[in-house]
Amino acid sequence: MSKPELLVLALGGNAISPEHESADIDAQFERTRQTVAQLDDWIGAGHGLVIVHGNGPQVGAALRRVELSAASVYRLPLHICVADTQGGMGFMIARCVNALPATMGVGRVCAAVVTSVEIDPADPAFSTPTKPIGDYLSNENAARLRATLGWTMAEIPGHGFRRVVASPAPRRVVESAAIKRLVDHGTIVIAGGGGGVPVSATHDSASPNQDRPIGIDAVIDKDATAALLAIELGASRLVFATAVRQVFTGWGTPRQQAVDSATAEKMREWLSVGEFPAGSMGPKVSAALQFMERSRDAMANVVICASDELKSALRGVSGTRIAK
Amino acid sequence: MSKPELLVLALGGNAISPEHESADIDAQFERTRQTVAQLDDWIGAGHGLVIVHGNGPQVGAALRRVELSAASVYRLPLHICVADTQGGMGFMIARCVNALPATMGVGRVCAAVVTSVEIDPADPAFSTPTKPIGDYLSNENAARLRATLGWTMAEIPGHGFRRVVASPAPRRVVESAAIKRLVDHGTIVIAGGGGGVPVSATHDSASPNQDRPIGIDAVIDKDATAALLAIELGASRLVFATAVRQVFTGWGTPRQQAVDSATAEKMREWLSVGEFPAGSMGPKVSAALQFMERSRDAMANVVICASDELKSALRGVSGTRIAK
Repeated sequence: MSKPELLVLALGGNAISPEHESADIDAQFERTRQTVAQLDDWIGAGHGLVIVHGNGPQVGAALRRVELSAASVYRLPLHICVADTQGGMGFMIARCVNALPATMGVGRVCAAVVTSVEIDPADPAFSTPTKPIGDYLSNENAARLRATLGWTMAEIPGHGFRRVVASPAPRRVVESAAIKRLVDHGTIVIAGGGGGVPVSATHDSASPNQDRPIGIDAVIDKDATAALLAIELGASRLVFATAVRQVFTGWGTPRQQAVDSATAEKMREWLSVGEFPAGSMGPKVSAALQFMERSRDAMANVVICASDELKSALRGVSGTRIAK
Repeated sequence: MSKPELLVLALGGNAISPEHESADIDAQFERTRQTVAQLDDWIGAGHGLVIVHGNGPQVGAALRRVELSAASVYRLPLHICVADTQGGMGFMIARCVNALPATMGVGRVCAAVVTSVEIDPADPAFSTPTKPIGDYLSNENAARLRATLGWTMAEIPGHGFRRVVASPAPRRVVESAAIKRLVDHGTIVIAGGGGGVPVSATHDSASPNQDRPIGIDAVIDKDATAALLAIELGASRLVFATAVRQVFTGWGTPRQQAVDSATAEKMREWLSVGEFPAGSMGPKVSAALQFMERSRDAMANVVICASDELKSALRGVSGTRIAK
């Protein structure tokens, strides 16, 4: 066997929920089981594995429950809802990984670590919150919540209002040394779920949420957190499992072209000329390039692939591969 | 400095929530901060620490939110609600511990591990579920939920119906080897929250909840889980921080007497003659005796104390101490 590698795997929403919002826990378990079954070879070969998962539909459902029951049950702030999903989804994914023949066969265990991620309270993202969360609200409800809870609202024409929060850049994963120790001992770790729970990198009193000094109601992009974690852990490989099979240039134009593999330099060039829109592949490619730039491993590489082609992507025969 | 010790600390509800059910997240953070501040000396001295926490009010609130929004948001089963509270409460407690001067001063980190606990699907507890969870229900609602979700209901005279679930004995903590590694490296670990998420010790197909093969809707006593974890980790000390200052014999009688310290043998004798009722100190004393019996450490000891006397209890000057 060749030297074990460490893989940080970012699982997009469709790797866990078959459809947006509508999938219940049974359906989520089933979809998760299908996704992680593709990791059996990787785990059996003794390679390291850290899984970062999205939580969009799950945190959306949590926020709706909080809103619908706010008259009789105390509210959970967004950051606690994110932490809650790390618990529930962490349990679910770990349980599926622990049931794999390879995991049981080699005596490894998968464990989820509740993860906080430091952000800079002076991050420019806080001056223009852009990330919509929770349900559409009527004008009256939006005004009431703005007044009582200090939420920032954005009007979505024809739909009403939605709360928007900042999406600051992740600076440091609080638990990364602990995660590294687990990985070094063969534990498969689930970490950074939903991008991690945002906490202030400076003293709490400098927090932009003075009324909630302990966590910050913002959303960190989970792909950016996965890239940061891959850097901090010294991973050699970063894989984004998502809804599309590959990265494309000229998307939606007659010259549309799938990318099988490219250098980081080439990807950066394409990104700079606007080949990857901000609303789709842009953030993933940016996160990939962050990792490629800061990794000290000459063999470091990134794969962007479909969730149901993860197995072949790990063998290098599907997805888009980015290398040095 | 003398040899570092490993402490497993079980925090009761009142160590985290000032009052049952009514305390919101801000109040929970504040109460948690007060409780963990008492651990500063222990952490600063370099001793090992694993915190197990109860989740009664929090999982109660989660179940109410699920029920109140069930018409429009998919339901979360009990075991996912328990896992969710491990995320949210784990984050909260870890954040408070990480903000302590001692933790920052010695460069240690506190991290919460989502914890599954194996139970035996043949545990006799499953034939007579006794643990009430969630709200009181009307006769109609109780009948509907019994029919649609298969819940077992108990009638509470004058109040209506409540769902009851089994409280099986914990057999094995799935993540204990991983937790041990973290502890060995100085990480302060939060684990076993709410008694842990119950999973089947045998193959899933033998699960008593055939429709939910991945987790089991039952509640494990968190004090029993703390004792098991203390045994599995080889801890020398087990502390239960609760609502009362000490254990009493003859509680509520003219011969009522506080116990400052006692041997395990003496406590077992008292337990067997009914000095510690099943609804109050009984389970804590039973868990303490489990640990004392199975621990291989001649210096092993248990302390039962009030949450706000934790600091002095760790110095040996308050609470009830049980030694060999």
